[in-house]
Amino acid sequence: MPKPSPKKFCVNKVRTYIEGSSQDIKVPFEKLTLSNDETLLLYTVKGQSDDPRQMPKIRENWQSKEASANRFKVKKTQLDYAKEGKVTKEMEYVAIRESYKYGNEMAFTPDDVKNAISRGVAVIPANINHPEAEPMIIGTDFSVKVNANIGASSLSSNFDEEISKLHKSLEFGADTVMDLSTGIKDLTSLREAILRASPVPIGTVPVYEALDRAHGDINALTWDLFKQTVIDQARQGVDYFTIHAGLVSSLLPHAARRILGIVSRGGSIMANCMVRRDEENMAYTHFDELLEICHDYDVALSLGDGLRPGCLQDACDKAQYGELETIGKLASRCYDAGVQCFIEGPGHVPLDRVEENQRVQEKFCHHAPFYTLGPLVTDIAPGYDHITSAIGGSLIASYGTAMLCYVTPSEHLALPTPDDVKTGLITYKLAAHAADLAKNLPGAILRDNAMARARAEFRWHDQFALSLDPDHAYEVWKSQMPDECETRGHQPSYCSMCGPRFCPIRLNRFLQEKYGVK
Amino acid sequence: MPKPSPKKFCVNKVRTYIEGSSQDIKVPFEKLTLSNDETLLLYTVKGQSDDPRQMPKIRENWQSKEASANRFKVKKTQLDYAKEGKVTKEMEYVAIRESYKYGNEMAFTPDDVKNAISRGVAVIPANINHPEAEPMIIGTDFSVKVNANIGASSLSSNFDEEISKLHKSLEFGADTVMDLSTGIKDLTSLREAILRASPVPIGTVPVYEALDRAHGDINALTWDLFKQTVIDQARQGVDYFTIHAGLVSSLLPHAARRILGIVSRGGSIMANCMVRRDEENMAYTHFDELLEICHDYDVALSLGDGLRPGCLQDACDKAQYGELETIGKLASRCYDAGVQCFIEGPGHVPLDRVEENQRVQEKFCHHAPFYTLGPLVTDIAPGYDHITSAIGGSLIASYGTAMLCYVTPSEHLALPTPDDVKTGLITYKLAAHAADLAKNLPGAILRDNAMARARAEFRWHDQFALSLDPDHAYEVWKSQMPDECETRGHQPSYCSMCGPRFCPIRLNRFLQEKYGVK
Repeated sequence: MPKPSPKKFCVNKVRTYIEGSSQDIKVPFEKLTLSNDETLLLYTVKGQSDDPRQMPKIRENWQSKEASANRFKVKKTQLDYAKEGKVTKEMEYVAIRESYKYGNEMAFTPDDVKNAISRGVAVIPANINHPEAEPMIIGTDFSVKVNANIGASSLSSNFDEEISKLHKSLEFGADTVMDLSTGIKDLTSLREAILRASPVPIGTVPVYEALDRAHGDINALTWDLFKQTVIDQARQGVDYFTIHAGLVSSLLPHAARRILGIVSRGGSIMANCMVRRDEENMAYTHFDELLEICHDYDVALSLGDGLRPGCLQDACDKAQYGELETIGKLASRCYDAGVQCFIEGPGHVPLDRVEENQRVQEKFCHHAPFYTLGPLVTDIAPGYDHITSAIGGSLIASYGTAMLCYVTPSEHLALPTPDDVKTGLITYKLAAHAADLAKNLPGAILRDNAMARARAEFRWHDQFALSLDPDHAYEVWKSQMPDECETRGHQPSYCSMCGPRFCPIRLNRFLQEKYGVK
Repeated sequence: MPKPSPKKFCVNKVRTYIEGSSQDIKVPFEKLTLSNDETLLLYTVKGQSDDPRQMPKIRENWQSKEASANRFKVKKTQLDYAKEGKVTKEMEYVAIRESYKYGNEMAFTPDDVKNAISRGVAVIPANINHPEAEPMIIGTDFSVKVNANIGASSLSSNFDEEISKLHKSLEFGADTVMDLSTGIKDLTSLREAILRASPVPIGTVPVYEALDRAHGDINALTWDLFKQTVIDQARQGVDYFTIHAGLVSSLLPHAARRILGIVSRGGSIMANCMVRRDEENMAYTHFDELLEICHDYDVALSLGDGLRPGCLQDACDKAQYGELETIGKLASRCYDAGVQCFIEGPGHVPLDRVEENQRVQEKFCHHAPFYTLGPLVTDIAPGYDHITSAIGGSLIASYGTAMLCYVTPSEHLALPTPDDVKTGLITYKLAAHAADLAKNLPGAILRDNAMARARAEFRWHDQFALSLDPDHAYEVWKSQMPDECETRGHQPSYCSMCGPRFCPIRLNRFLQEKYGVK
């Protein structure tokens, strides 16, 4: 990760660890100390290495495993252990992480985590061959997570830029990262570099690489080729796969009648295989084989919504809900096979039908974690779809969606730049936090309250330190303030919004004196 | 308004008029013709003048009026006429404007408008001395409106910059504009320039100027001085006033106990007058006099929430709801006096209590239009508060809030720049439109569907033309596309997100052929 530029404001933030029941469970946090000596622990996904290209293999010796080619296989998945009632180190790690995220020692016990996993309502994506990944949990009962998509396409981006996007993603708090690269030569080595540098779970859509291996020829994209791609990626260490197995052929006529048909890339590839070869979805017909591969490495399945609506008019139709119903049945098969799974969701949905989407998913998928892309609540704001989608995303997360896939400002127009990655992530971190607050997670409001107190007391530098994007907040503030406000000793009791004379915050002091408060 | 830079993409958009029952009712729209000859009428607030400093006085001879100093007084307000069952030209204008906004000739009749006004559930802010203002309506049954705040402070901004912010506001669709200038010398002439250049209603907070006239001395801010300021601004042509009359002294102890006390500038000024002089709120005690002034010029009252919460922890407390209950009683007095009014709301509210805020307002204020500032759904994202607030704003508008006051990216940090005005407005236009869609306003989805069809058919230039910010959408798209895609004849059937090989949209054509669709 590039070194942050020297701060022009005071921020006292150091890495600290909360230890678990054994020496090798050490969960990193950032400990923020404010100018009034108040402290907050902040959840971090930045990892624990000084070399951003190589993260420590913290889980190297945590699980029983067996050799497989030049990698390892698991004996049991997290789900297998949970069903047996066994608390793994991963579960304990996650319990500490979730509890201290919002400053509450007792919020989640390792048993809570185990129980959630055992019921299939939460997932810890952690491939045995990605020991750098710090365990994290995706589930309604826990804090809302954010995924960042990165990935090169044949038209845009290159190796260095993708690694730089990974680092941006970590810097701004991505809980997982999906590598959606297609059409470049070094897919395998790019993914290897990403895995070794990533302390967060990495997801992929294996059919992208399979089609690359088939040189873009749909007819050459056979089950054997697809399966081999899945095996190779699983062995390499990918933590979760998006597989569009629920897009069965009976749903295609419904999709064909839409304005925008199929907008999922993976779904479109599967559909084209089906239509051109007049056969059923191979991921559906061979689902048991996929489960076997995923079980071997404890890869989680992200059951893809190949028929997610691409515009408001297409939302909540027979194609979308029909696929979701099929996915629900596949989710049960995952559960029975000991494979962790979660469910992908839309997409584009009008604001008044967002809650319905969550409830339908819960019904069909037995409360397996929901993982949505937004949803966008209008189609007419390209260039601002990080916002149209954060509106739907924060709302559906407040109703129970466990993870949000970010959308960047370049959605519908171009491949995101590193700056877009940053903007998309900050937007989704605030949306996810708004949902945590709405879910009344214990302690979720502590940071907001620390911010409010810093505002009340004109502790500007503390306000920046408490922000999701401290440097940016500082730059905006500084742009209109006189130079003498630079140093910590001279934090002014006003800002340029109202100027010195009209500051209501300062005038509050009279009110408090009058009524004998504080 | 500055001339738009020459478009690098094709857009066919011309001003057109829908005529009413008499010659002087001509409602401007922008008629957009797409490359497939599809047409859409777009609502416009840009006015009808080629000289952006001087808009035509379209309402100059619409109402009975009488001379007052060098200006005019009304004989009856829009509310008076509506109560008598009389449809005014303003009401007919608004019916056309609302109906055609979403392409539906029959959606609203002049009688619908009259009935809404007569029940006090909608407002047409239109001062007799601001004949340049094109009538627009604020009410739950109609499309959601957006207000943009502009205004200089003593630390930042100047005359030209404020006029430039007005033009930016109009360019990006502000339905009303509030001039919140304080602490500068030429408040009156700045306001005069804004009124003459504005085809949208202008709002102010008169107590800001009153305190300026008192040279910042709270003790010199007497009722006589305040009243004279209100009279002068009303006579000048301000269309609505924010008056913090509901902040009565019994509520102050509740406010003092908050983390952030009072964050409303106007509310803080009133509170300080009360505390320092140990007297009741002068706008409350002299409310009948204020009503008389507002009635003289048909100024609408925006009953200000001086006790809106400044952080999540302060939301929905006794201070906020106590003030709202008082405001509800004042709203009844407005109604009885023939003065149009609407109600200001928060502020900072957790996502799970947004609906409650709307319902409580309806109960206390008899469905008078609600006008909220966001609300922001988290406090930890300064620099991104246009987004934190658009989340709460779109949601509360979907529940019935009639107008949203925009929040810019510089909120909590600095005075907005013209670029911030633009970003804030686009963000709020998309939030308001998302709410219109959620309210199922007839025809609201037409533009979204036109966008979806343009996407399905790779009509990129049509996509830009249909966007809330066409230039920006084009720039993002173009930044990663090869040069030969420049001209209309060569719109590529892919974009840089997936590259040529993987475009799912293009692959849909096979699907449609297979199933015989279109």
